[in-house]
Amino acid sequence: MVSSLTITPITGIGEIRPGDELAVHIADAAAAQGTPLADRDCIVVTQKVVSKAEGRLVPIDHNDPDAKRRLVESESVRILRRRGELIISETRHGWVCANAAIDLSNVDEGFAALLPVDSDRSAKHIRDALRARSGVETAIIISDTFGRPWQAGLVDVAIGVSGIAGVVDLRDTPDSKGRVLQVTQVAVADEIASAAELVMGKSAGIPAAIVRGIEPSWFREGSSRELIRPVHEQLFR
Amino acid sequence: MVSSLTITPITGIGEIRPGDELAVHIADAAAAQGTPLADRDCIVVTQKVVSKAEGRLVPIDHNDPDAKRRLVESESVRILRRRGELIISETRHGWVCANAAIDLSNVDEGFAALLPVDSDRSAKHIRDALRARSGVETAIIISDTFGRPWQAGLVDVAIGVSGIAGVVDLRDTPDSKGRVLQVTQVAVADEIASAAELVMGKSAGIPAAIVRGIEPSWFREGSSRELIRPVHEQLFR
Repeated sequence: MVSSLTITPITGIGEIRPGDELAVHIADAAAAQGTPLADRDCIVVTQKVVSKAEGRLVPIDHNDPDAKRRLVESESVRILRRRGELIISETRHGWVCANAAIDLSNVDEGFAALLPVDSDRSAKHIRDALRARSGVETAIIISDTFGRPWQAGLVDVAIGVSGIAGVVDLRDTPDSKGRVLQVTQVAVADEIASAAELVMGKSAGIPAAIVRGIEPSWFREGSSRELIRPVHEQLFR
Repeated sequence: MVSSLTITPITGIGEIRPGDELAVHIADAAAAQGTPLADRDCIVVTQKVVSKAEGRLVPIDHNDPDAKRRLVESESVRILRRRGELIISETRHGWVCANAAIDLSNVDEGFAALLPVDSDRSAKHIRDALRARSGVETAIIISDTFGRPWQAGLVDVAIGVSGIAGVVDLRDTPDSKGRVLQVTQVAVADEIASAAELVMGKSAGIPAAIVRGIEPSWFREGSSRELIRPVHEQLFR
């Protein structure tokens, strides 16, 4: 019996507003569509709805070309590159990404969504609230959409985790030849975020997905810090 | 009825040798485990077994510290960074990655596995052979494991595609507010490769997985070229 991974979008969550308890919306919507949450589910939630629920919305004048630049700079601790309106910078969390991951799409006109202050804490809050409400022991990944410097297109990555590894370290595991592998630290939380994006889509308004069938040993206290390359190991600054 | 994505490892493929017809091994192993291939399946196959089947193995003296460096240089068209034994370079395909994606693990002692000469052609070959053998219209993604400059850990990405989009361009799709999104080119082939890695593992000897339930509109002639950022848009060289 081969065990598969299944990824199920959670539809019908509806519009999220500041102060909403996301866990309630997620649990209710999952149950309503016939896929109630279960132990060992990993729930991937997009940054945008987390930021909305946490009120991380700031007013911005879309007609002022400098407004976004000023906002990006204020959310950055270091600017790496500029080209036109594009700024590649490091956020205070340590993420190097475009425009400090500030988002203007799927946000009310005149507002921008900032990253959560502490996405791991946001993930833990959702996880604790799901446990309290539904009695389920889940893992939570908060996802965001990042570009890559040498590859085209965007992929979803993990910017917050709770109850699951960010990186799984297989450095000491013998390969199928019995040799010890050299480099096998797998960013499983990023891969799970990418997998979830495949069922969420950009414009479908689906802000969460259930990933079921994850390797049991990956469930542990994790942190998105595992997913940030230490600065002294960064060769491109 | 919510439609899920399912990702199923193909076990029991066994050791692949130069000249082997991978499609035969994949189709037989999938059928043997009770999950025969079907139309609209996307099969993700690791670069390593493709390289083995294509005889892309070169002898290397593991005790000669210069041997790997020379091999990496010969497989590169441009060196971007060096640190210790690590070389970040651009391959002739256009991939910027570590050590020209040359692999020493899970290869016979004394050999290294090079990238396929043309991974899209390799993917098309597998797809054509599956159609001829089993009558199924599949998509094929050849995956490899890449690092990221600012994030820790490795993720699987697509280095060859056939029958599926590399990047899906949603730039003209209105978001849920009715606004046209600014940047929504999603590297779906990379996300599918990452998703498949979650069931394959590094040392489990599982070189392929079936991804079922993919958005129908993504099935088209694709190319891994879509996934390479044009050099003039690369800000980190």
